[in-house]
Amino acid sequence: MQLEKALKDKINQKTKPLGSLGRLEDLAYQIGLVQNRLDPVLRSPTILVFAGDHGIVSEGVSAFPQEVTYQMVFNFLQGGAAINVFSNQNDIALQVIDAGVNFDFPPHPKLISAKVAKGTKNFLKEKAMSTVELEKALSIGQKLCYELASTGCNVIGFGEMGIGNTSSASMLMSYITGLPLEECVGRGTGLNDAQLTKKLSVLKNAQLFHGPMSNPKEILQSFAGFEMAEMCGAMLAAYEQKMILLIDGFIASAVFLVAQSILPEIKHNAVFCHLSDEAGHQNLLRFLGVDPLLKLQMRLGEGTGCSVAYPILESAVRFLNEMASFESAQVSNKDNQ
Amino acid sequence: MQLEKALKDKINQKTKPLGSLGRLEDLAYQIGLVQNRLDPVLRSPTILVFAGDHGIVSEGVSAFPQEVTYQMVFNFLQGGAAINVFSNQNDIALQVIDAGVNFDFPPHPKLISAKVAKGTKNFLKEKAMSTVELEKALSIGQKLCYELASTGCNVIGFGEMGIGNTSSASMLMSYITGLPLEECVGRGTGLNDAQLTKKLSVLKNAQLFHGPMSNPKEILQSFAGFEMAEMCGAMLAAYEQKMILLIDGFIASAVFLVAQSILPEIKHNAVFCHLSDEAGHQNLLRFLGVDPLLKLQMRLGEGTGCSVAYPILESAVRFLNEMASFESAQVSNKDNQ
Repeated sequence: MQLEKALKDKINQKTKPLGSLGRLEDLAYQIGLVQNRLDPVLRSPTILVFAGDHGIVSEGVSAFPQEVTYQMVFNFLQGGAAINVFSNQNDIALQVIDAGVNFDFPPHPKLISAKVAKGTKNFLKEKAMSTVELEKALSIGQKLCYELASTGCNVIGFGEMGIGNTSSASMLMSYITGLPLEECVGRGTGLNDAQLTKKLSVLKNAQLFHGPMSNPKEILQSFAGFEMAEMCGAMLAAYEQKMILLIDGFIASAVFLVAQSILPEIKHNAVFCHLSDEAGHQNLLRFLGVDPLLKLQMRLGEGTGCSVAYPILESAVRFLNEMASFESAQVSNKDNQ
Repeated sequence: MQLEKALKDKINQKTKPLGSLGRLEDLAYQIGLVQNRLDPVLRSPTILVFAGDHGIVSEGVSAFPQEVTYQMVFNFLQGGAAINVFSNQNDIALQVIDAGVNFDFPPHPKLISAKVAKGTKNFLKEKAMSTVELEKALSIGQKLCYELASTGCNVIGFGEMGIGNTSSASMLMSYITGLPLEECVGRGTGLNDAQLTKKLSVLKNAQLFHGPMSNPKEILQSFAGFEMAEMCGAMLAAYEQKMILLIDGFIASAVFLVAQSILPEIKHNAVFCHLSDEAGHQNLLRFLGVDPLLKLQMRLGEGTGCSVAYPILESAVRFLNEMASFESAQVSNKDNQ
């Protein structure tokens, strides 16, 4: 309580009209509370990009072929993807993780090999992964986050690549929120109307096949990709490590829904970076009761929303640490205060 | 037309679903057109912060006393204001300009002395400035922008400081848009309900006193501060110099309204950075038909919206220049293309 008041006082004594930095003030306050200090710092920001393939793509739910997953992993490693560009721009480190891509990568210094299996099973016909695979994925994600925290990193973003993973995310969302699939499904990488109708029909059939379910881990096991399960493990560990969690678009938010079902306090550490143009994301964020920082009609994933939004977090921490107070700058405060 | 198509093609061949970078794609396209090249660059971004005092404050329209204008100028010079912090963060140069502050500043290496007079007249009783003063202010603003452009800067932001200048901006807005003052007036730096009622009543009386007017320069002369008139001159010159104009919050947008009335093409070069929490700004942006990049509930002025939004422009230019294409990265494109 003392820190809460001290943070508010510090913010209010800066040379600006009361409240006039809006959401930057909320962010500074949040980050101060998470770090338990009046002068929080963002250290070694890092985005983990988890990649994995999905058995469900054999049902024709994606506009792009499955090989795009491994091709994009090579693109990440070569520095040519959007997430590379924005992370370079904003001095954010990038870790590319093979969580379950259907491809045998040659060893590469920039690729973290953490493959659970070469893609999930087709969840129209069976659970996407076994309980053993789920636990393995969660534990890998946890370990990756612990290693990162041990280097001093205290702000972690979550990106992903996986052809088919908007279908997985829609299933997670529908099961956790209770919203009908119609409100959870979008065009992904660019389905046309007929393809969207087909995707929805496949997912409805999957819901009929699996029936009701409420245990968040069972939901994850049934529908997630390995990239999503590892991400979930990393999110849970990041809260434990008192890190700030940067939540990207639709996929990462759906994984966050699961993580929050397991560990409700995790929301205190999360910053929602971006409203995706993927239909469903707005409903998901409304369910969570959060308002993301950016609304730029992006829908690319990879963690791009985190990387583009990151400078705003930096602005929040910096004004708290670097701005003068009315007293230090000898500026008169409001007449009626 | 050839450049327009080439820019669109270049954007669409990047390794991402079509259109998935949303407004970053629009920005890259706009900046490419303004610079007339496929590989635009943002060079030496600079924010000009114009400061000036307003005769109208003697009517009690502001929550802060007039001396805050000069005190905040000192704060800018000492590096303690919000605009200093955000500009440092994002490598944006800052120029602080005394356009008409009611104070005799000692010479300071960081202060550009461009004072037209020590504050405007009270526009409840006469025009805020003479025609000679208006022309002088416009020409000073123009000259400052030319000098900046000659150093290679091609992206310019507009900030301001002036106790009372939301009143001026509301008058400009009401006269140019034809909207009633009720839709143009807000709480500024923090008026309470009674003070807001008083402000509105003062401005309505001023409108009665001056009567109808449609010439944008006459409107500027009647109600603007010197910081706003110099800003208007700088905006007009920035278009001529093919620069990108970063438009901040309520004050800068009201000045832009005047500039656009004089030079309609200026809109092609403008990027609206931020939706201010100042009531009236949303109506103003709706009148202009633009959607600003950020909505962070800020209402501080100084150019803070420009400086916080700037990394987004940088992201736009960088993805255009640095991302791989489907061909260069050997990534398969969408099935149905």
